[in-house]
Amino acid sequence: MSNALDSIFKAQSIAVIGASNDPSKRGNQAIRKLRADGYTGRIYPINPKSSEILGLKAYTSVLDVEDRIDVVLVCTPAKTLPAILEQCGQKNIPGAVVLAAGFAEIGAEGEAIAEATLAAARQHNVRVVGPNTNGVFNLHNKMNMVGVQDVEPGNIGICSQSGNMMLAFVTEAKRRGGVGFSSYVGVGNQLDVNLAEYLRYFGDDEDTKAPVFYVEGFQDGRAFLNTCRDVTQKKPVVVYKSGRTEAGQVAASSHTGSLASSFDLTRGLLKQAGATVVEQSDKILSIAEGLSKLTVPKGGRVAILADGGGHATVTVDALVDAGVELTELSTETIGKLRSVLPSAASCVNPVDVAGGTDDDPSVSADCAEIILADENVDILMIIGMYGGFAARFNPALLDNEVETSQRLATLPEKYGKPLIVQSVYNTLRPKPIEVLKEAGVPVFVWPEPAVRCVAELIDYAHAKRRNATSPLEIPDGPTVAGKAILEKITADNRDAFYEHEAKDLLRAYDVSVPGQMLVRTEDELEKVREVLGDAPMAMKIVSQDILHKSDAGGVKLKITGESSLHDAFREIMANARTYDPEADLHGVLVAPMAQSGVEIIIGVVHDAMFGPVMMFGLGGIFVEVLKDVSFRALPMSRADAREMIAEIQSSKILDGVRGGLPADKEALVDLMMKVSHLALAHPEIKEIDLNPVILRSDGYAIVDARMILNSKGH
Amino acid sequence: MSNALDSIFKAQSIAVIGASNDPSKRGNQAIRKLRADGYTGRIYPINPKSSEILGLKAYTSVLDVEDRIDVVLVCTPAKTLPAILEQCGQKNIPGAVVLAAGFAEIGAEGEAIAEATLAAARQHNVRVVGPNTNGVFNLHNKMNMVGVQDVEPGNIGICSQSGNMMLAFVTEAKRRGGVGFSSYVGVGNQLDVNLAEYLRYFGDDEDTKAPVFYVEGFQDGRAFLNTCRDVTQKKPVVVYKSGRTEAGQVAASSHTGSLASSFDLTRGLLKQAGATVVEQSDKILSIAEGLSKLTVPKGGRVAILADGGGHATVTVDALVDAGVELTELSTETIGKLRSVLPSAASCVNPVDVAGGTDDDPSVSADCAEIILADENVDILMIIGMYGGFAARFNPALLDNEVETSQRLATLPEKYGKPLIVQSVYNTLRPKPIEVLKEAGVPVFVWPEPAVRCVAELIDYAHAKRRNATSPLEIPDGPTVAGKAILEKITADNRDAFYEHEAKDLLRAYDVSVPGQMLVRTEDELEKVREVLGDAPMAMKIVSQDILHKSDAGGVKLKITGESSLHDAFREIMANARTYDPEADLHGVLVAPMAQSGVEIIIGVVHDAMFGPVMMFGLGGIFVEVLKDVSFRALPMSRADAREMIAEIQSSKILDGVRGGLPADKEALVDLMMKVSHLALAHPEIKEIDLNPVILRSDGYAIVDARMILNSKGH
Repeated sequence: MSNALDSIFKAQSIAVIGASNDPSKRGNQAIRKLRADGYTGRIYPINPKSSEILGLKAYTSVLDVEDRIDVVLVCTPAKTLPAILEQCGQKNIPGAVVLAAGFAEIGAEGEAIAEATLAAARQHNVRVVGPNTNGVFNLHNKMNMVGVQDVEPGNIGICSQSGNMMLAFVTEAKRRGGVGFSSYVGVGNQLDVNLAEYLRYFGDDEDTKAPVFYVEGFQDGRAFLNTCRDVTQKKPVVVYKSGRTEAGQVAASSHTGSLASSFDLTRGLLKQAGATVVEQSDKILSIAEGLSKLTVPKGGRVAILADGGGHATVTVDALVDAGVELTELSTETIGKLRSVLPSAASCVNPVDVAGGTDDDPSVSADCAEIILADENVDILMIIGMYGGFAARFNPALLDNEVETSQRLATLPEKYGKPLIVQSVYNTLRPKPIEVLKEAGVPVFVWPEPAVRCVAELIDYAHAKRRNATSPLEIPDGPTVAGKAILEKITADNRDAFYEHEAKDLLRAYDVSVPGQMLVRTEDELEKVREVLGDAPMAMKIVSQDILHKSDAGGVKLKITGESSLHDAFREIMANARTYDPEADLHGVLVAPMAQSGVEIIIGVVHDAMFGPVMMFGLGGIFVEVLKDVSFRALPMSRADAREMIAEIQSSKILDGVRGGLPADKEALVDLMMKVSHLALAHPEIKEIDLNPVILRSDGYAIVDARMILNSKGH
Repeated sequence: MSNALDSIFKAQSIAVIGASNDPSKRGNQAIRKLRADGYTGRIYPINPKSSEILGLKAYTSVLDVEDRIDVVLVCTPAKTLPAILEQCGQKNIPGAVVLAAGFAEIGAEGEAIAEATLAAARQHNVRVVGPNTNGVFNLHNKMNMVGVQDVEPGNIGICSQSGNMMLAFVTEAKRRGGVGFSSYVGVGNQLDVNLAEYLRYFGDDEDTKAPVFYVEGFQDGRAFLNTCRDVTQKKPVVVYKSGRTEAGQVAASSHTGSLASSFDLTRGLLKQAGATVVEQSDKILSIAEGLSKLTVPKGGRVAILADGGGHATVTVDALVDAGVELTELSTETIGKLRSVLPSAASCVNPVDVAGGTDDDPSVSADCAEIILADENVDILMIIGMYGGFAARFNPALLDNEVETSQRLATLPEKYGKPLIVQSVYNTLRPKPIEVLKEAGVPVFVWPEPAVRCVAELIDYAHAKRRNATSPLEIPDGPTVAGKAILEKITADNRDAFYEHEAKDLLRAYDVSVPGQMLVRTEDELEKVREVLGDAPMAMKIVSQDILHKSDAGGVKLKITGESSLHDAFREIMANARTYDPEADLHGVLVAPMAQSGVEIIIGVVHDAMFGPVMMFGLGGIFVEVLKDVSFRALPMSRADAREMIAEIQSSKILDGVRGGLPADKEALVDLMMKVSHLALAHPEIKEIDLNPVILRSDGYAIVDARMILNSKGH
């Protein structure tokens, strides 16, 4: 078997522990359901008090069963678990699905049971689903441990922290038709198997084309991201993360830390890992359906073939809202369309057949082929009223329509391009539409869900290409200069870097840092002009005890002339002393004023769930008031850095303001990558905050840099 | 009859012009459909070539019919229309529904027919629906001229520029159940009756609780807004405006003009008029359903009563995303809930019954009553799995569940508060849920549509109160000082105001404008200190030929000292002369530099569709790059002005930056109202642009003001 969880999901023999002859007990219902759904594997009821249950021979324990058992379905209470797991171990049973609640969530007693259960499972290599799960089903194995009825088989996998959510998907799919499920697992308490491992299973499972994850909280977010990155090279992964309006997880003093609120961060990291993040539960199923069925496109240029005004207009609006490109058809394509459509038809995109398919629906397929053959087209949407001509106007057209559907269904493979259909008639389920759906073409009633699928499909295709081609950049280790700086700070028994040390460390990772000079006594000011030149200077207090330098009167800007330098030095030292008489004053940092440009902020924090992450945003009010920032996990690729920049809402400002030159985005990407290298080479640095960096049309200047080490002893 | 269109929608007698015995003709289908749907009024087939059609006596023309005819349904081609309308006039027939296309949209010939048709209609007071409509239905009159099948009767009215959109609503409603329609009209070319008049009809129609408008373009947007303002005092109005990604309609040189893109503007104005603007077509029906059924709440505080974790979490996320307030239940309410729910239940909002209703569903209604009685609660959402206990677990509970539903359905009236239900089981249509729906409680499958209804309901209730209580401010007319300034500019034969004139005009409407001095010759500079004081000065060229003063080198800032004033004056005049040797140089405007604050922009333009509108935004990149602006039609209320300020995305910046004081929003509202008065008093001013205004924590300073008159001769 190819995946560690196959013995559970693809079990050929199941022992039901706590099997019962009482129809109200789960240990009775489970066996009935397995048999009702046609499970073809062997079922062993385990119950020391019965010799036969539901006509099957019952056993006192799994140890009495002679054949191999792939999985136990445990219907007994929590306290029985440690002993059961021991027996599973002795019997070499690789999997257990544990329904009981009453573990860690009930306090100390439950926690002790959980620990003992886990210890037994680990010792004997038994993988445990749950506890506190409502079970597992795999419809391709005709194995339904959950008891849910009327589940349509198909190729969407579900991994959920809420059984009710699974039930909602299943009832919705039943109503919609044309969409169904491969396997489901309710993850429960994740005592043993975690979300990343389930994701790996769904990635390996050939019956699953699109796994859906309903997540309330990640236990090991980094593992999930890593697995997601792999799996999305094979198939799309749809994630809904609830509780996204919670306050942030990271307690930190920097801007970056305070902005690392869980959902913005989670979304950024999941997208980086290739996941399709859905933010509204009622859209999950339609997006998963679309992604599970549609050919992955080479690009994002969409053509519309419509047979009615209103819906085409709505589709165009929705595409533009979603930032999707409406393609321009080639002259050749337009000419070919003209030759098959009436003169009133619109033969540019969006194409409107203007009644040209009413008498002969097969013209729809002709037009679809003409459009799909155009190399300007990556995706085709058929919009409006397809499939209802026979039902509504002329029953004699039914055969024609059905044949047209059969032909349309072959086109995605023939042209290697996705085809998606929206039709008002979908609710009536006429045969031509059912034929399309059975052949794997997604059909929606309204334009917007179709557009959302297209937009998510384009994003998925893009993320897949990006992750395949733009490598994560991982440094070999710390540089010699970097090591030396860290050693000095550690030797000083400090957590906080002085600003000049932070800048020196940046330099050690090849970051361009403006000339600077640490002036500890007034007479050292003599050398400033010699070292830094004649430009106006910025002067800032250097003290590990003074975090907010401006508030302390510790910053003076645009200082020109020798005497002004001296005045400023004395004033800064005096202000700092007044502000905090106890403060260690390390000196004053002097540097030439930065040229004007756009203020940006780059930060790195260590998230409790996801590990090191970078934050990017425009400085000042954009970060502080509007909280317009983007996040990526480190290591990241250059493409990730570019997307972080494009993702913020205020990104357009970097394209130039009031006719000014655009900001130097490549220099910015370069800077972000170097900061990433630095952060990865020195995991002992807890927070990095470059704020602000002035980004010009020709490079950048780091105006302020703060870094903090993990507290001593961590 | 209470509305001018009642004779059409509530017709008691219909003449079908172009009636036919050929079943493939519309003039045959229409009569069959009317009879099939049980139309109880009289039907008169009109066809000069037949004496009997479908068993009814046929007439040569309407003139031959002896009884009164309320409406003619015209199935004959365009060219027959003028003569038919003449006959309608002679017969005193008040309404005509014209199906034929081939009018203005086919060019000159069609336009001539359209003109002749309209002339006849106006002369004889015949109101014409269409032409190029697919007809009208009123299910409460059992009158269906459209031929659409399977329409559920109910109380949503539809007015649409796309027949296919109506068809989409109708098929969707049929599938969903519990929602239906009162009347429909396809507006076609709007030759005579326009959207505002249809809106008035739906407003007056007692069978319609929520009119839905699918609009591709307004002919008289101002009339629609005015009617909408009235109608929304009685019932919600749902508007979907397509084509919203079009380029702007206003050709203008100001920032305000260039930003008045059609959809941002349209949305702002419709919301001001009380409409519920829906931006995705697939949400229209569920929102209209919710608004048509739900009691209008007194406030926006929502309580959740849930019986399952996942959906409650998703609901909270969606409410927070939508900016809806989750209320805090009173101590008394929490105590009462504790007394009826098990100890594991959560008795704070969101309330989770934790299985407390499984054995006795009526506990749900007990809890609902306890919560609705709390004065901290305005709206109750029941979330999760309501209505499925009997179907899923225990058939014996069915009567209890049905009775519980009957009781729940009485609560909105009993407590005067809306109740909305989300249940996974809704797709299965179990009886307890059908009972709720039949009694008028909206039930949704997923949390998000329920949350959208709640959010739109709160907005509607708010807009209704706002428009009832905050009056539109309309000035009596121009002030004496204002008139004098306009007369001078007109006498000068100019379109553009000089800056000092624009500021003087603002002063004439009680706007506080900083001291300023127009200096025409250098020797006049002597008086500057005497008049304006010793503060640093801003100096700007005054010339109707120089639009971009900075580009021309025509602006100098922070001028201090006597000699600097002279230097600046000479430099500005020289720069301007070089920039445009032909320019009329009117002088240099000197004013004290404004204190620092937040830059804002206030503009007024005349929109071709909607008339005078005000724009508001933060200055600089927020307007220029991010296009973050809001619009309202003038006249407006002070509440409208407050909402314009709150509506922009960057609004938080006005609450204070980096611990600074919040901006003086009341002074800003005051300024906006005064600019509104000015614009309304002088409709001959085409554009007003106050950019920037510096808004401080204690008032504002208008730094630059531009105004342009309608071109001479307009």
